[in-house]
Parts: sequence; C-alpha cells; structure tokens
Amino acid sequence: MRQPTTHKEQLVFLKKIEGQVRGIQKMIDEGRYCVDILNQVHSVIYALARVEDKILEKHFEHCVASAVKGKSENDRKEKLDEILQLISRFRKT
Amino acid sequence: MRQPTTHKEQLVFLKKIEGQVRGIQKMIDEGRYCVDILNQVHSVIYALARVEDKILEKHFEHCVASAVKGKSENDRKEKLDEILQLISRFRKT
Amino acid sequence: MRQPTTHKEQLVFLKKIEGQVRGIQKMIDEGRYCVDILNQVHSVIYALARVEDKILEKHFEHCVASAVKGKSENDRKEKLDEILQLISRFRKT
Amino acid sequence: MRQPTTHKEQLVFLKKIEGQVRGIQKMIDEGRYCVDILNQVHSVIYALARVEDKILEKHFEHCVASAVKGKSENDRKEKLDEILQLISRFRKT
Repeated sequence: MRQPTTHKEQLVFLKKIEGQVRGIQKMIDEGRYCVDILNQVHSVIYALARVEDKILEKHFEHCVASAVKGKSENDRKEKLDEILQLISRFRKT
Repeated sequence: MRQPTTHKEQLVFLKKIEGQVRGIQKMIDEGRYCVDILNQVHSVIYALARVEDKILEKHFEHCVASAVKGKSENDRKEKLDEILQLISRFRKT
Repeated sequence: MRQPTTHKEQLVFLKKIEGQVRGIQKMIDEGRYCVDILNQVHSVIYALARVEDKILEKHFEHCVASAVKGKSENDRKEKLDEILQLISRFRKT
Repeated sequence: MRQPTTHKEQLVFLKKIEGQVRGIQKMIDEGRYCVDILNQVHSVIYALARVEDKILEKHFEHCVASAVKGKSENDRKEKLDEILQLISRFRKT
C-alpha cells in the first residue's frame, strides 16, 4: 500500500477510510459473517497505522530540522519525550 | 471505554468513529500540530480495536456453541484455523 | 520461521532464545551499535510471539475439544473469558 | 516496572529475562497449565519491549545530539530512515 505523503494525499486516503468505516456499518447492518467484518475492521486499522507512520515521519523531519537550528537543550528534551510517548502509545492497540 | 455489545451499539460506535475520521481530515486541512493529529489517529485505531475485540468475543461464543452441537472434526479444525489467523493478524498494525 | 509444535521442539526453541538473550547482554557489554542491539532484541520478541501463537493454538484445540465433551455453560464461559483476556493482552507490548 | 537506563542496569535486567526464559522451559517441561505459560511468555515479551524503549530513547538522544553537530543532510536523512524502520518494526510482533 502506498503511503500518503502530502496533505492532499492524506485527505484522499482518509476520505477512503471514512468510506470503509461506513462499509463496516453496512456489513453489521446486513448481518454479514463475523470473520469478514473482522477482516474489514483490521484493514481500516492497518490503513490508519500507515497514516500514523507517514505523519510521524514528517514530524521527525521537522523536529530534527528544528533541533539543528539551535533550540535550547530543554526544548530538544521536550520534543524527544513527546516523540517517545507517541511511539510507546503505538505499541498498544 | 465501554465495549459495544449489540449490533445497534456497534453501529452507534462506528458512526462515532466515522465522525472522528472526518475530524482528522479537518485537522489536516487546518494544518494542526502533528502530535495532536497523531493522538487523534491513534484514538480511532484504539476504538476500532475495541470493536474487533467485541466482534471476536461474539464469534467465539458462537463457534464454541456450534462446536458443541456435533460438527465434524474437520469443520472444527477449519473454524479454529480461521480464528488463529485472525489473532495472528491482530498482532500486526 | 517454523513454529515449534511439540514440547520438545518448544524446549529447543526456548533454549535458542535463552542464548539470544545472552548474546544481547554481550552486545551491550561490548558497546555495540544501538540499532544492531534493537534489531536483536526485536528478533527475540518476535520468536517469543511465535511460541505464544503455538501454545495458544494447542490450548484452543484442547479447549474446544473439552467444550464438546459436555462441560457446563459456566465452565465454557470461564474458558472463553480466559482466552479473550489472553488475546487482549497480546495487543499490548 | 522501572526501565533500565544504564548499561549496567540493562545487563542486570537482561540477566533476569534470561532466567525467566529458563523458567518457561521448566514450566513446559513440567507440563504446567498453558495459560500460566502464556502469561509468563508475555511477561518476558513485555520486559524486552521496555529494554527496546530505553535503548531507542538513548539512541534518539544521541542522534538528535549528532544532528545538531553539523552532519550533512544525507547523514541526517539516513539516520531518520533507520529510526523510522525500527519504529515500523516495533508494530509487528
């Protein structure tokens, strides 16, 4: 799956995810087979995880770039902690 | 967070998730801070994982119930493999 | 990676994992590059997750088999909850 | 659980993990209840994930520090990609 890079691509991607969430509602409404619903739910989770990856990547590029431009040690420590908390959160679904 | 149990509750829950996905699009559109967007994306992933848990639980109850009602060994093996594949898929996001 | 199925295979597998954990200690002791250590740590996590998968699979086979042999509704409910708690725990690392 | 910060603490921590892996072998050897074994296996996975978190944190501090000290754009990009690959790997167990 190609990762959405630009804001515009991310918006198109999320619009598609929104449609998939509506699709799951329809599946539940129609009493479709549980395993098919579960596979669809996990596809959406997987797609959202790719959005996360991409936004994190861009955040990284920005953070490292900012750090270079002479922020204080405290500012850097704060940004670092923020990122580490995010990554630690990624581990839990 | 309370887990959605009935079909009706799941639909309400997914309708809310659909709204959250639209909210993320708005945040990207408005150029909001990456870390705030990432937190919102992960909230949606977390909510979808709760939907998975609940649907899997109901599927389990049904499967075990069916297994009791004298299905063949092959049918049971097939259902078992299907569930194990799902669980293994849950590990990957 | 082949999954360890019998008790004997699982013991050989875990003996290898034990050796890998000692290897990580050696890497830290020698001041090896962080990214190499991280890759090694994640290999061990991955191997342990395969052990989990396999033990869960065997537990499933046993549980479903037991459920068929006329346990009470309460016993089945209890076993089911036990498995669902395990799966939910798998999501968190 | 306290995270192991220094090399010495990490070695003590990993020595304990090594002992836990031996403990799991003993449990399998003695034919202990599957669910107890699974809980023990997941405790080890969880402990190793804390080691990962801590080593990544130190790697981050070092990387950001290095980036400040005038590395080339290419070097920074390479380090960034290395970290993003690690994080993406963390998602899979």
